[in-house]
Amino acid sequence: MAKSTQLIDNEVFRAYATYTGIVLLKMMLMSLVTAYFRITRKAFVNPEDTASFGKGESAKKFLRTDPDVERVRRGHLNDLENIVPFVGIGLLYALSGPELSTALLHFRIFVGARIFHTFAYLIPLPQPGRGLSWAVGYSVTFSMAYRVLKTAWLL
Amino acid sequence: MAKSTQLIDNEVFRAYATYTGIVLLKMMLMSLVTAYFRITRKAFVNPEDTASFGKGESAKKFLRTDPDVERVRRGHLNDLENIVPFVGIGLLYALSGPELSTALLHFRIFVGARIFHTFAYLIPLPQPGRGLSWAVGYSVTFSMAYRVLKTAWLL
Amino acid sequence: MAKSTQLIDNEVFRAYATYTGIVLLKMMLMSLVTAYFRITRKAFVNPEDTASFGKGESAKKFLRTDPDVERVRRGHLNDLENIVPFVGIGLLYALSGPELSTALLHFRIFVGARIFHTFAYLIPLPQPGRGLSWAVGYSVTFSMAYRVLKTAWLL
Repeated sequence: MAKSTQLIDNEVFRAYATYTGIVLLKMMLMSLVTAYFRITRKAFVNPEDTASFGKGESAKKFLRTDPDVERVRRGHLNDLENIVPFVGIGLLYALSGPELSTALLHFRIFVGARIFHTFAYLIPLPQPGRGLSWAVGYSVTFSMAYRVLKTAWLL
Repeated sequence: MAKSTQLIDNEVFRAYATYTGIVLLKMMLMSLVTAYFRITRKAFVNPEDTASFGKGESAKKFLRTDPDVERVRRGHLNDLENIVPFVGIGLLYALSGPELSTALLHFRIFVGARIFHTFAYLIPLPQPGRGLSWAVGYSVTFSMAYRVLKTAWLL
Repeated sequence: MAKSTQLIDNEVFRAYATYTGIVLLKMMLMSLVTAYFRITRKAFVNPEDTASFGKGESAKKFLRTDPDVERVRRGHLNDLENIVPFVGIGLLYALSGPELSTALLHFRIFVGARIFHTFAYLIPLPQPGRGLSWAVGYSVTFSMAYRVLKTAWLL
């Protein structure tokens, strides 16, 4: 029987697992940041979420959008748009047999760029900080996709 | 040559495949629920989608937002934000060689919590029902991520 | 030690890697299309993104929504909602040992349908063009999920 631990014994796969774990946890943290801003800014979207503030008009005024909440949500959506391709293409890349040092370089730059991107979005830093960090992560994923398609190509 | 059926012979991986299949199908169902509410509430967003209702002003009035449609869409986005990390981290977790019973416990609780979350969002149930089911799924993913990082750690 | 290149030697897995790479790159292109429309339509959402247009009121007028930008963003979100299940279920499907020709049929139809869907959304084509291409991709993912659950079922 196949042992499920085979892949996890491979160093490139272990590096992939480590960086994917970190960057997915970072993405999940966006939910907590959203919740934090929703509660501190008292800005909710579902009527049932404001029930503890009283009934009728007194609760209804908390059904509103807040610039800080919307900013975190945009950061979260940008994470989904960029981290999903990294996780999918990165897995195929890790299985395509790259050098460990090359793989680590890709994973480190991507995860570093996405962590910087989050700070650039939430603080916010002046452009082009956020734009450049986005482009760096995007380019890393393209570079991995190039190797995947070159190695695996079967149309 | 490697046989692609190796992994699928592993029991933990089979459990992962089963629960991931179920929870991704559940997420896909949100598209059908959205379509159902868009059609029954006559609330569309693309002008070309209302062409069958006539031309000009008679069709334009169906380009509007509807509370029920928006509620389903929020549930769908919440699924994306939470099920994507589960699928990614869960795969690595399944490959990290956990006990079958421990793995099944994680998968069952996560999928159960997400199905409950969907009903809590759509009915809607009073809080903290939805909030708690979200937190349960979130915690399961964190627990799996902890094992993945502990097993695979290579930075 | 397990060789990470084992899976990539399998033809079905190579086909999966190729089509997943293509469809994820297609999804990533939506970010560039969004950026293109934001810049040409001068429609931004973050105040820091309009700083290069001057200060105060002169920059503030570019903080607005634009129908073309919103259309691309809806197409991007629809991609996330549909391509994420394809990538997750497709991986499990590829590991479930299907015939190469059957697998290729699934992958080709899905990726073709999603590329058509993007054009149908952005041009836009009259309905039911976009709706049908969505339904075709959706059905392919369901078909793969059926095989995954039948092969792996362990609840």
